[in-house]
Amino acid sequence: MISLEIIKSISLPSPSKILLLVVDGLGGLPNPQTGKTELETARTPNLDRLATNGICGLADPVGPGIIPGSAPGHLALFGYDPVRFTIGRGALEAIGIGFELEPEDVAARGNFCTVDEKGLITDRRAGRIPTEKCVEVCQLLDGVVIDGVKLFVSPVREHRFVVVFRGEGLAPDIGDTDPQQLGVAPRPVNALTPEAERLAGVARQFIERAGKVLAEHHPANMILLRGFARRPHWPTMNEVYKLKPAAIAGYPMYRGLARLVGMDILETDSNIENEVSVLRENYAKYDFFFLHVKQTDSAGEDGDFDRKVRVIEQVDRAVSELLSLEPDVIVVSGDHSTPARLKGHSWHPVPVLLYSRWCRPDSVSQFGESACLSGGLGRLPATQIMPLAMANALKLTKFGA
Amino acid sequence: MISLEIIKSISLPSPSKILLLVVDGLGGLPNPQTGKTELETARTPNLDRLATNGICGLADPVGPGIIPGSAPGHLALFGYDPVRFTIGRGALEAIGIGFELEPEDVAARGNFCTVDEKGLITDRRAGRIPTEKCVEVCQLLDGVVIDGVKLFVSPVREHRFVVVFRGEGLAPDIGDTDPQQLGVAPRPVNALTPEAERLAGVARQFIERAGKVLAEHHPANMILLRGFARRPHWPTMNEVYKLKPAAIAGYPMYRGLARLVGMDILETDSNIENEVSVLRENYAKYDFFFLHVKQTDSAGEDGDFDRKVRVIEQVDRAVSELLSLEPDVIVVSGDHSTPARLKGHSWHPVPVLLYSRWCRPDSVSQFGESACLSGGLGRLPATQIMPLAMANALKLTKFGA
Repeated sequence: MISLEIIKSISLPSPSKILLLVVDGLGGLPNPQTGKTELETARTPNLDRLATNGICGLADPVGPGIIPGSAPGHLALFGYDPVRFTIGRGALEAIGIGFELEPEDVAARGNFCTVDEKGLITDRRAGRIPTEKCVEVCQLLDGVVIDGVKLFVSPVREHRFVVVFRGEGLAPDIGDTDPQQLGVAPRPVNALTPEAERLAGVARQFIERAGKVLAEHHPANMILLRGFARRPHWPTMNEVYKLKPAAIAGYPMYRGLARLVGMDILETDSNIENEVSVLRENYAKYDFFFLHVKQTDSAGEDGDFDRKVRVIEQVDRAVSELLSLEPDVIVVSGDHSTPARLKGHSWHPVPVLLYSRWCRPDSVSQFGESACLSGGLGRLPATQIMPLAMANALKLTKFGA
Repeated sequence: MISLEIIKSISLPSPSKILLLVVDGLGGLPNPQTGKTELETARTPNLDRLATNGICGLADPVGPGIIPGSAPGHLALFGYDPVRFTIGRGALEAIGIGFELEPEDVAARGNFCTVDEKGLITDRRAGRIPTEKCVEVCQLLDGVVIDGVKLFVSPVREHRFVVVFRGEGLAPDIGDTDPQQLGVAPRPVNALTPEAERLAGVARQFIERAGKVLAEHHPANMILLRGFARRPHWPTMNEVYKLKPAAIAGYPMYRGLARLVGMDILETDSNIENEVSVLRENYAKYDFFFLHVKQTDSAGEDGDFDRKVRVIEQVDRAVSELLSLEPDVIVVSGDHSTPARLKGHSWHPVPVLLYSRWCRPDSVSQFGESACLSGGLGRLPATQIMPLAMANALKLTKFGA
């Protein structure tokens, strides 16, 4: 297993440029009528030309059979073993909505819930209140200061919210108050270490206050908290790879993940053409670009095979633009598969394509799941893609003499 | 991950014989004119016949994207995980020049350097003095005894030398004296543990003496030492595999690596035909032979595609000779790729071919990078080759009852 420590010991700065194009949920399953996946159905002359001159394979983001979440899927593509580099639930929720966690902040995932007159939980999700209602009640709780600790309460979706505690002397070792069952009271806030007593006290006061403020907002008349966590502190891509990396991604989750590994976040929406323009404008300033396409995954999640095909064709046109910049290495892959037929993330390995002038081309001439099976990259853990990209950019020196 | 401990627990002695032919830097990149690599360009009827009757694949010596040095590349072929089995810099340099390190010896890598009248470093490499000059100044320093410790000072190349300290009570925990920058004085010798104080004292006196002896030898008027290390002590191939192994290699580095894993070193130069003769003469005495061909790597390092092709054709003729000995298992691979186009070691996986009567042949009928892609060994870490060779020699028993 090649660790980040080993890569760090052999990586060299150089002017060559690497472009990582992440087509979210790229992999699919065949349409039973045609036997072809979304990627195989799409007309992709530019990707096929790149596959012809490049080297292809199938990547497992976490491991065979494992359905990756967005965070592990992306971390693997950045070269960070997603089994080792994990993010606490509260911190992940905060990152997902674009909240910029400071190093000492503690975040928790919250649910609005319903309790009866005895304080026993009757609905852990408060009837899945609409997001607008969530926004409204979050505003009632947001911004309070308790014992010198500032609280940020932010809506996520439906009954979900995030609370971030910012202040001195906080430690995240707090048990969940969500008992994950009905007919019982929320658990009291419990500090798991002496260091966490201060935060536990603040959280207790916050929950007590929330009970009063929400009394008139049935079904959202109480809150449950879980997954207290700080943001993780990992080696940055600059430390590991000596790269100056930039992220071009419209959605908060992907920007947040990129921030965790030390990328600069460039301003963009999630329109593919706009993303390419942002890349072009910033091309001189960085030597690594993570460009994220979200719409493939959304189409897959919606079960819309044809729309996913059309988005892939749009990506293919963008690839032609990207190639005109002549990056030294271009990698095209996904953070996981999202087959339209499954309407969700899946465990299927993800097609990956790597092009550089040093890549030892294989015989693959179409970028698709079946063709990639016989590619020169073989079947590989997604964490191996970055070392390969670095090697192809001639940014790695010998291991051992 | 199958460890040496596991292999040790299931290996059996037997009369069957394994031949490991290491064609240094075997893998390549295609000639842009023909689309064929060096190996694919060479006429190799014997290797192709072996591939037809055998099983092929592509091996990663250290990991995808990692450029192997000679030591990790060979250790992987011997079945020793090169990430776990590492060698200190001083010891590796000593091994590289064929110095036979005794168990308690401590070796350091030295640079002749230039210092000004204030003792500040102006050139860490003494203007890269010619090797003949290095030999001359090493002789001035070699053989001295300090506090009962004997010093061996041996030239490597240009400004590089090795110093070996031999005596009682030495420990290698000494900081580098090379500050890796100009305009400062060499660092004083620093013992990192109390046990290393004795060696530190000897090294201080050696450096002081060197300063006096070299005063008139500008630009080589001082020395810098780094990488103090003992030779590693690893389980031998006899312990792990129950083999009686012999190495047939002309160059000191490969003989030294073979010695580290307990092989007998047979006397030979690096001429391929002579190596085959040595093998023939000693065939009855051993059951494992590591035969090393250096010239492929040298041609690759020189960027000489055609010469590498010719060496491979010479290897192919030798294979015919080797087959006449009827070894039970023959493995042909390389310690890494050295594409002529890159003029150096590279990260590309290395073709591997294994033949035995028990190998379950695949459909590969030509020994080359592209054909090996669809071989029955698949893409494998090079450390898996030895267990496969052992199994094919029927030298492994069941794992678990």
